[in-house]
Amino acid sequence: MLNQYLDPNLKIFSLNSNPELAKEIADFVGVELGKCSVRRFSDGEIQINIEESIRGCDVYVIQSTSSPVNDNLMETLIMVDALKRASARTINVVLPYYGYARQDRKARAREPITAKLVANLLETSGATRVISLDLHAPQIQGFFDILIDHLMGVPILADYFSKKDFCDDIVVVSPDHGGVTRARKMAERLKAPIAIIDKRRPKPNVAEVMNIVGNIEGKVAILIDDIIDTAGTITLAANALVENGAKEVYACCTHPVLSGPAIERIENSNIKELVVTNSIALDGEKKIEKLVQLSVAPLIGEAIIRVHENQSVSTLFD
Amino acid sequence: MLNQYLDPNLKIFSLNSNPELAKEIADFVGVELGKCSVRRFSDGEIQINIEESIRGCDVYVIQSTSSPVNDNLMETLIMVDALKRASARTINVVLPYYGYARQDRKARAREPITAKLVANLLETSGATRVISLDLHAPQIQGFFDILIDHLMGVPILADYFSKKDFCDDIVVVSPDHGGVTRARKMAERLKAPIAIIDKRRPKPNVAEVMNIVGNIEGKVAILIDDIIDTAGTITLAANALVENGAKEVYACCTHPVLSGPAIERIENSNIKELVVTNSIALDGEKKIEKLVQLSVAPLIGEAIIRVHENQSVSTLFD
Amino acid sequence: MLNQYLDPNLKIFSLNSNPELAKEIADFVGVELGKCSVRRFSDGEIQINIEESIRGCDVYVIQSTSSPVNDNLMETLIMVDALKRASARTINVVLPYYGYARQDRKARAREPITAKLVANLLETSGATRVISLDLHAPQIQGFFDILIDHLMGVPILADYFSKKDFCDDIVVVSPDHGGVTRARKMAERLKAPIAIIDKRRPKPNVAEVMNIVGNIEGKVAILIDDIIDTAGTITLAANALVENGAKEVYACCTHPVLSGPAIERIENSNIKELVVTNSIALDGEKKIEKLVQLSVAPLIGEAIIRVHENQSVSTLFD
Amino acid sequence: MLNQYLDPNLKIFSLNSNPELAKEIADFVGVELGKCSVRRFSDGEIQINIEESIRGCDVYVIQSTSSPVNDNLMETLIMVDALKRASARTINVVLPYYGYARQDRKARAREPITAKLVANLLETSGATRVISLDLHAPQIQGFFDILIDHLMGVPILADYFSKKDFCDDIVVVSPDHGGVTRARKMAERLKAPIAIIDKRRPKPNVAEVMNIVGNIEGKVAILIDDIIDTAGTITLAANALVENGAKEVYACCTHPVLSGPAIERIENSNIKELVVTNSIALDGEKKIEKLVQLSVAPLIGEAIIRVHENQSVSTLFD
Amino acid sequence: MLNQYLDPNLKIFSLNSNPELAKEIADFVGVELGKCSVRRFSDGEIQINIEESIRGCDVYVIQSTSSPVNDNLMETLIMVDALKRASARTINVVLPYYGYARQDRKARAREPITAKLVANLLETSGATRVISLDLHAPQIQGFFDILIDHLMGVPILADYFSKKDFCDDIVVVSPDHGGVTRARKMAERLKAPIAIIDKRRPKPNVAEVMNIVGNIEGKVAILIDDIIDTAGTITLAANALVENGAKEVYACCTHPVLSGPAIERIENSNIKELVVTNSIALDGEKKIEKLVQLSVAPLIGEAIIRVHENQSVSTLFD
Amino acid sequence: MLNQYLDPNLKIFSLNSNPELAKEIADFVGVELGKCSVRRFSDGEIQINIEESIRGCDVYVIQSTSSPVNDNLMETLIMVDALKRASARTINVVLPYYGYARQDRKARAREPITAKLVANLLETSGATRVISLDLHAPQIQGFFDILIDHLMGVPILADYFSKKDFCDDIVVVSPDHGGVTRARKMAERLKAPIAIIDKRRPKPNVAEVMNIVGNIEGKVAILIDDIIDTAGTITLAANALVENGAKEVYACCTHPVLSGPAIERIENSNIKELVVTNSIALDGEKKIEKLVQLSVAPLIGEAIIRVHENQSVSTLFD
Repeated sequence: MLNQYLDPNLKIFSLNSNPELAKEIADFVGVELGKCSVRRFSDGEIQINIEESIRGCDVYVIQSTSSPVNDNLMETLIMVDALKRASARTINVVLPYYGYARQDRKARAREPITAKLVANLLETSGATRVISLDLHAPQIQGFFDILIDHLMGVPILADYFSKKDFCDDIVVVSPDHGGVTRARKMAERLKAPIAIIDKRRPKPNVAEVMNIVGNIEGKVAILIDDIIDTAGTITLAANALVENGAKEVYACCTHPVLSGPAIERIENSNIKELVVTNSIALDGEKKIEKLVQLSVAPLIGEAIIRVHENQSVSTLFD
Repeated sequence: MLNQYLDPNLKIFSLNSNPELAKEIADFVGVELGKCSVRRFSDGEIQINIEESIRGCDVYVIQSTSSPVNDNLMETLIMVDALKRASARTINVVLPYYGYARQDRKARAREPITAKLVANLLETSGATRVISLDLHAPQIQGFFDILIDHLMGVPILADYFSKKDFCDDIVVVSPDHGGVTRARKMAERLKAPIAIIDKRRPKPNVAEVMNIVGNIEGKVAILIDDIIDTAGTITLAANALVENGAKEVYACCTHPVLSGPAIERIENSNIKELVVTNSIALDGEKKIEKLVQLSVAPLIGEAIIRVHENQSVSTLFD
Repeated sequence: MLNQYLDPNLKIFSLNSNPELAKEIADFVGVELGKCSVRRFSDGEIQINIEESIRGCDVYVIQSTSSPVNDNLMETLIMVDALKRASARTINVVLPYYGYARQDRKARAREPITAKLVANLLETSGATRVISLDLHAPQIQGFFDILIDHLMGVPILADYFSKKDFCDDIVVVSPDHGGVTRARKMAERLKAPIAIIDKRRPKPNVAEVMNIVGNIEGKVAILIDDIIDTAGTITLAANALVENGAKEVYACCTHPVLSGPAIERIENSNIKELVVTNSIALDGEKKIEKLVQLSVAPLIGEAIIRVHENQSVSTLFD
Repeated sequence: MLNQYLDPNLKIFSLNSNPELAKEIADFVGVELGKCSVRRFSDGEIQINIEESIRGCDVYVIQSTSSPVNDNLMETLIMVDALKRASARTINVVLPYYGYARQDRKARAREPITAKLVANLLETSGATRVISLDLHAPQIQGFFDILIDHLMGVPILADYFSKKDFCDDIVVVSPDHGGVTRARKMAERLKAPIAIIDKRRPKPNVAEVMNIVGNIEGKVAILIDDIIDTAGTITLAANALVENGAKEVYACCTHPVLSGPAIERIENSNIKELVVTNSIALDGEKKIEKLVQLSVAPLIGEAIIRVHENQSVSTLFD
Repeated sequence: MLNQYLDPNLKIFSLNSNPELAKEIADFVGVELGKCSVRRFSDGEIQINIEESIRGCDVYVIQSTSSPVNDNLMETLIMVDALKRASARTINVVLPYYGYARQDRKARAREPITAKLVANLLETSGATRVISLDLHAPQIQGFFDILIDHLMGVPILADYFSKKDFCDDIVVVSPDHGGVTRARKMAERLKAPIAIIDKRRPKPNVAEVMNIVGNIEGKVAILIDDIIDTAGTITLAANALVENGAKEVYACCTHPVLSGPAIERIENSNIKELVVTNSIALDGEKKIEKLVQLSVAPLIGEAIIRVHENQSVSTLFD
Repeated sequence: MLNQYLDPNLKIFSLNSNPELAKEIADFVGVELGKCSVRRFSDGEIQINIEESIRGCDVYVIQSTSSPVNDNLMETLIMVDALKRASARTINVVLPYYGYARQDRKARAREPITAKLVANLLETSGATRVISLDLHAPQIQGFFDILIDHLMGVPILADYFSKKDFCDDIVVVSPDHGGVTRARKMAERLKAPIAIIDKRRPKPNVAEVMNIVGNIEGKVAILIDDIIDTAGTITLAANALVENGAKEVYACCTHPVLSGPAIERIENSNIKELVVTNSIALDGEKKIEKLVQLSVAPLIGEAIIRVHENQSVSTLFD
């Protein structure tokens, strides 16, 4: 830690989901991580002990609600309860990855809207602000009545690709219908056109085909999504792109969930490189050669400093 | 009114935004519209008098928060307050068009999220349920902690086009990046492919061009949006489609806001027919020859009956 | 702006109802008005952009919810939402005139209590304090659970009249039964007796007569009300006073709503001078010769400074 | 109990302030009072035991928050808590007299608004509806977000006087500035003019004089107030009326608080008869010969039946 | 299922923690378990689909928040959200075992009160009632503002022992200081005296000794606790009892958490028989020979029927 | 007042229950008690006037909700309302004794949980923090969602006894089953064993006997409870201890409610000395010779300073 942050009332605590990112953020800000123990009893209940006084402090809790999502979420809620009862001045929950974000509407009858439930739970527990990154839908901001700062990871991914100086034409590809706006934003930064993978079933009882809307032939295709989970969509998309004449295929996303068969699928796919951020911590076996992980610690660290000092956070996006 | 609804505890009231639709809905259900006077004092304040007892009743208030949006919204909130204080059992606000729905996220620094504010205002006033149609973003459902039933108008539009029996190939076109999912849904019902209008600026300081992603040549193009407001996007899209070889262009949307230059633009555009619903009442001068208005009264009426009788509303969508 | 206020965290924003008063207040305090744009889309929806960072600031929003009341109220609520989401430390809504204040009780069956609804809407939107002036009923203070500072405009009106040094005896007259306490307070400052206009119907089916309770003969009568809206009551009262022997009649109120036939009635009435404050902005055509408008800017400006500096506001009334 | 109410889900419970009125109301409705014990421990804490199941019932609790006001209020809140936890379907608090109603605004700096606090406490405890009578200010209705039915006792008092068939002219007199509207309403029912007692101090350091605004000479004066507490105002008013030529003086009010020197003052005053309701129970020694007590049990009983059966309560006032 | 419950609006759903108990309860009540799928995505997120309409129904959700406690709790909250949004009339969460109940106070600085947090989360999600069994502290009832019915399992355990007809004197033993009241209640039902295991450290730096307060010599000792988790306390107690002369030792509890080394410790201990309920489902390997599991299904089933039919639940305890 | 506290924003106000303790606390902290008048009208209503500006201050209100409990509680709530409306920054209610704490659970059907109700009332009134002492059950902390600091009086009592240097063996005795944990804590500080008074009925219809579990013969017994109210339990326990061979008996508690026959019973009992704190003010006639009253002012004063300065309060207990 080169620099040291002066105001002792700014405290950063890490929970268990992503301690490396938390450490990086704390280093960026220039503080030691707060002392607390977060353990499990043998029956699975979480026990939290905050081991230094935080009365009157502005506390930032770093936790991605990635897998194990329910444990990580409960850790967060219990930590907030403990901080509230210990008289923290403000409790800022930093969620680099917001679990359950995809359950953000009732798509079918009698479904929950779990992303809203999570927002309500955070409010009820006593959080005063949430800082998150690339929410699956920007409308999730409106699920909160407490403060929320919404950071964007796409510029980090775009920067990476623009430094590559591809010789060939590139095209940014959305792997599904819902992601076209995101692809357009990336394309703008790379001065590139877009294309869309349009899965459709030509007739009833006929297999779905991977139709490509837009021109990708001979180009370097960059697939972009916010979350890559089981990697089914993205790898099928990559293969379809190659089959339809793309020169090579890169893929990127902010949140590398990479659950179940994801790693195997990526290994076996036509994807040349998968670029992700460290919003979610990855086990060693997931850090395959194809995978490049960019850090969001400077982005989040800077946001924390700006929030703490009442400076504009929006200027981070310019 | 052919049929008469038996349960006298179901009451339907109309406010001032869309009395014709309210009358149609009441007829469909088989009840008389409730008696109330909703007037303006000369200083512009709204005065509401409910002129029949509604103690213990399940009341449905029909009101689109279309222009004048603030007056219509305040009418709704004041009516709900009056109904609550008059001991209604449930207060169901039917918003065929949900004003301010497009302000559903913080797109820039220091913006409000007015669609969430509106949800909070409805909850605060005492509404117990909202019934709405084709919300600009389905995530708006999650802005509510009270009950919300979200109806879909796209099938009504799709039915209209499928009855046309176009001889030529058709393509469903999204006029912007955010509407591709909607276009895909329409396309599925019409067994058609999709295309996207991809406005982009090829280089800095160069004019934006209307790029078309997908194949539209020689086809009948059906542009679809949820809301057509000033009609700039949709008419530019229509013209671009024709210029790029589309045979003819239809346009449709659920909510015909049609403000400012909209009617003139549509008249002057290549759009052959604009198909909308009556979620928003249109003045006589807006009912131009090109415009076809389909009624959502049966859809909403059926939803009210099902809500009142505790039957599944989701089956309405099959 | 002669003086300049030192603390940069005090910010004053003006909305659209009364920008001149807002400017006067800001000048009094010694700050520039905050930069924001408050516009209407062509469909009537309000769009607000706060154009400077207000993180951690104490913001005062100046807005009378006068006509167009619903637009002005929604402007206020949307502005508060924007300020809340932009991390303002406190949001103080200054309502020189509180619209809908007269709908403060259920006078008849199934009426709303819109003044309470408005209070709830302000709380829900995120306001932390309201500053208002001569509320129609002082009990409206109790409609709020957030902080409310209630300023009094009557002393400003009384000062004006006491500087007139009338040679004749004066009498303060309440134009109706509900305003006697207000008249008594004014009378106390002017060391004068009171009288009351007692409209009554002597027998059924007989016309209402303007009975005057109290002695007004040969005196200068000063009619006082909190709000003059259509001016029916006050002008009938003035004429009755003259008919019953008053030497001349002045009228005054804090809030010049002056809607519909008000100006014409006043012009045609026996009222010699109508004294009001600038709690509501008046169009040029309303600024008739008879009308004197006194500024509440020093009162409100001083209140803002005292609130901001945690000094007693009540001393303003001594 | 002649009639018996059929629906066993309507339960009426009496607390300790006014058991006779509660018994009368229960008789009117046709139910036995619910069984419960409400006792004090020797340290003053209240202990409540509801001695019959009220799961799913609509419970009406009869309690005036008259003196000892704090004990009676806490009894009410604790009873509501017990009923809520015992799964009552609705909890309707009937407050024939609403204690602390006069503390309904901040009249001076740093005062509480206790009438609003009481409303909040009732809501927090779990009450779902309040039924009250002649609230000191009708705006108190707006202090509640739960349901409130506001009954009027003035017609009961007016009926009593109109049956007297006074031979002489009568005049209804308001004992202070705030009560003129109430006096006007009574005067309307008796087809009489009004007068006002206008206490004022002619010059600084000169004693206050009881000025009478309006003509009372030779008339039968009926003083009306909502609450008579220490009876200072009303007895001074009565004496002033007689001194100024009134033939005889009656006084009436809905709520006979009659605390401190009240009874002695009334005995010694020129008041011929004091007419009150039984909204507050009176000890034997307060039931002096001059005092006439009219029952509000039929009014409240009818209101309970109408609320329970979802009939209009407003028709009670016609 | 012999009997069939008539009212189709009573629905019982089982989540994943204790499906056998749920089935038993549904059989007791006479209904089929409601159809729903509760699955995990490969990233660990819970997905719930309610597969039958429950509009207007009274739904009972059976779920113990036993291990994996966070998953089971989130399942419950998500299910409640889904039921709320699907318009259930009431949502009754049946928690035979209430996880985190032991974190019911701040025992040390900066601890959370997780049992209260859980109560708040349940309320926030939309639950309208909780039914639970032998809460670790009865005060947890007060953590809820929604309805809670607290059932008692001790009588089931006591019945079992009273049917044993021990020839010898018995003594009921509390394994720690906090459980003496529970032991006393059990002792009352068995007409037995009590004793207490009083762990204490005679001097600093001296090992803790298991002191026994009360006479246990030659008696059959029945140890009772509400929860047996790692079984350390109870097995040390059992051994101490035998060493100090108890003839034989039985142990019992309502909630067999039995985590970590519990089973091994019990096997190796002097406990002759461990009697528990099925409030927590036990894996096969935990169902050792010493363990007797009694069903709480009739108790909970009867409570559900009584709640649904608005009958007194308290009579269950007589 | 020797020392003077520097920050003028820390204000301490005393209400009427325990002004001597409040004075002691203010002296300890080094501030003058805030000026306010708390009076009763002749009808029993409380009137509060805060006589100095407290805008932006951190206010500590000292009040035990001891007898008259309802008056003292309402005083507290009204004071908090007044402070809130007067713009206090924080409102910290210091309750040395928390009335109604024993009604902390539903022990029987249809009982209230008044201790929770009181917590809700405090929150509703606007309190931001509660500081209390030896709550009857520590779980009451969880009744609050606002901040609560829970201080412990047992060390003060223990210190007193450890300074006595008893020559004989001592034993700490719990007078009932629920108090064993408290006795154990005291015993730890005195390095003593414990015993329990186990009231039980050997057979139905046989008188209850005072059974003593544990060895007390020849020892100095120290009975400990949190509250001594009517002193029935404690004096019967004392007598039983002497009858069973205790050498002498001391009693102690934090909260000397001492209602009804308490003083007489203590005088007539075998209790040699009764040691209490001044959490509750005692009338002169209660200050009998046997009674020793220790001050909690330093403990509470130190807690106030630490809360105000954001220092750890927990270190007070080491």
